[in-house]
Parts: sequence; C-alpha cells; structure tokens
Amino acid sequence: MEFSSKLLERAVNEMSQLPGIGKRTALRLVLHLLGQPESQSLELADALKTLRSEINFCKKCHNISDHAICEICSNPHRTEEIICVVEDIRDVMAIENTSSFRGLYHVLGGKISPMDGIGPNDLNIESLVEKVKAGNVKELIFALGSTMEGDTTNFYIYRQIQDYDVVTSTIARGISVGNELEYTDEITLGRSIINRIPFVASLKS
Amino acid sequence: MEFSSKLLERAVNEMSQLPGIGKRTALRLVLHLLGQPESQSLELADALKTLRSEINFCKKCHNISDHAICEICSNPHRTEEIICVVEDIRDVMAIENTSSFRGLYHVLGGKISPMDGIGPNDLNIESLVEKVKAGNVKELIFALGSTMEGDTTNFYIYRQIQDYDVVTSTIARGISVGNELEYTDEITLGRSIINRIPFVASLKS
Ligand SMILES: [Zn+2]
Ligand SMILES: [Zn+2]
Repeated sequence: MEFSSKLLERAVNEMSQLPGIGKRTALRLVLHLLGQPESQSLELADALKTLRSEINFCKKCHNISDHAICEICSNPHRTEEIICVVEDIRDVMAIENTSSFRGLYHVLGGKISPMDGIGPNDLNIESLVEKVKAGNVKELIFALGSTMEGDTTNFYIYRQIQDYDVVTSTIARGISVGNELEYTDEITLGRSIINRIPFVASLKS
Repeated sequence: MEFSSKLLERAVNEMSQLPGIGKRTALRLVLHLLGQPESQSLELADALKTLRSEINFCKKCHNISDHAICEICSNPHRTEEIICVVEDIRDVMAIENTSSFRGLYHVLGGKISPMDGIGPNDLNIESLVEKVKAGNVKELIFALGSTMEGDTTNFYIYRQIQDYDVVTSTIARGISVGNELEYTDEITLGRSIINRIPFVASLKS
C-alpha cells in the first residue's frame, strides 16, 4: 500500500497492529476519523493513552480497577469465602451481568498455553494459591472456558491446592464445549454458576 | 455493559464509535492493547492525534498530503491535461497501484447522496469546475464507483462543464456494477482506465 502522506501511513500502520484489523480496514477507520470533528480523534487518542498509562489492577483479584481494591472486592455484601477463578476481565463482566454470584473473583490474566509460550508463572496463580493457604477460602469455582488450555489451567491450580481444606467446583457445562464465556447468554451462564459441580467430579465425566 | 473501571469504559466507548466496531470488539481491542507494551498504545494514540491535527489536503487535487501540493500534482512527468475524478483517497491509491495513469486526480471527498444529506456543496466540485473553466484540462475521467450516487455525481459535474472544450470519459465498466473501486483487482482497474469510454456514450448504454 502506497501512501500519499507519512502521517496517514503511520496512523494506518499503528491501527493495523490491532488484532483482526487489516491494512484496508485500518485505512477505512482512519479516513472515517478524518471525516469526523477533530475532537473525536483527540478523545480516542487521549482515552487510549490515559488507560494504558494509568491502568491499575485490583491488588486482591487482579481485575482492572481505578482503585487499589476494586468495587467487587471492597463490597461488604460479598463473601470472600467463594472465589470464582476466571481468565480475564470479560469473564468477570459476563458473570456479574447474570447477578447470580455473590462471591469474589480471581482474574488469572490468561490460560496456561505452551503453544503460545504462556506458563503458570505468567499468570496470577501464585496469589490465588496464597489466598487458599491463608485459610479463608471455602470454595474455588473454576470458570475458565472449557478448552484444553482451560482444563490444563484448572488442573494445574487444583494440584497446588488439593491438600488444603477447600471445595473446588467448575461451572456447569451447559456452556457448549470449546465456547468462550463471554459469548454465552446470561441465563445459561447464570444457571451454570448456580448448578456448578465439584471439580473432581468434572474430571471423571 | 458494566465496567469495573471508568478509564476502561471511556476507552471502549471511544473505540466503539468507529464504524463496524461494536462494544465487544472494542473491549477486545482495548484489552489487547493492555497486554502489549505501553509504547504500542502511546504510538497509536499519538499517530491518531498527530494525523488529525496536522492533516493537510493538496491545494490542487484535495488528496491527503503532508505538503501544500501533493507528490502527484508536483510531479513534472505527469500531465495536468487529463484529470481523473475520484471519490476519495482510497481510489487514488487503487489507481496509482495500477501504474496505468499519468494524469492528475481530483478528489471529490464523497458522492452526492441526498439520503445521507450530502449535496454538491459538501464536495470539492466547484474547484474542479474552475479547473475546467481555466482551459488547461483536455479530458476528465469520471472514476467514481458505478453506483446510483456515483452516476448522479458524474452527471451533476457533466452538466456544469458540458459547454466547455473538454472530453469526458468514464472508466470502462469491466468493474462489476455496484462495486467499489478499491476492491477491484489491479489488472481490471488498470485496463478500465486504458479502455475508458466517452462519458456521453456511457449515458446511452
Ligand atoms: Zn478486586
Ligand atoms: Zn495533489
């Protein structure tokens, strides 16, 4: 692609580094911005810059938060005895949307995936194991998507905490195998939390 | 969609104002950026901001350019006797890519579209008519996509200049009707420039 402007080329190149955005789509998006009031581009640019430089993760659950401890973790009406283990913030949003869960979350930040070079140490696993060792957690709900990486991650965590006095469960697999949580409708997802099954039982099925 | 962070919400909302980017896609893109080095977000933000605030259009052809007169218009090897009339910069890029055209361009900035509230005065039509009236132009090639809006725009311009000594042609319709130029392969597009037909003849077909 030959550009008549270096400024345009740079914007298109940067935009096309986003996943699923090819050069043509990037050009279409950038030209759209050029047709809008200048404030729209400046707002977008500032929002991305501010988010990335001021981003903060909850010290307890690793959810994205504007405070040191997120609103969920600091809500006195929620119990810290039940922790729902999820891959990322989209899963927190999806489960919160069901209003079916009154415990806390633990955001791993991904799944163990040797193919992608992601090992246990790249994820927030140690802090989860520490929570269990501290003794206040009565139940861990594994709510990762039911992919091979999700199963591997669940099992890795399970082995770390199986000697402690904690119940482990997985959300009921009403969710079709291989599906990501965020694409599951609220009712199915809400029900799968309520009907969760012991993790050990899920290994046998 | 409920967000755990105002900064995140703002970034997703701004991103989802881009055409074809829904809230979920916007969230996916923003979370991707959060997983990349900070420099990537800052570069993207700066590229968008700089483009929008420093954008310049060629004074002659209205193409996006970093200089007052673009590289095409200032190239002494190109003839200003033939002007190819296009909708936007993507069409310039598509035609330049064919290496089949040695004249200049005139970028209208859109097509006449009453449905979208775009009239002749919203486009760079007057400056095109002025060029023809000045007497140096021997041929105008209409290279808008062959949609109803494209045909309307061609005809509107044609009426303004029909009494002047200028040949009008349209690019040969090897391009399927209703198709946009930018999605046409180089060979078809290059050939359609070479095999262009007089505009008046195209009205009868
Ligand atoms: Zn938290
Ligand atoms: Zn120019």
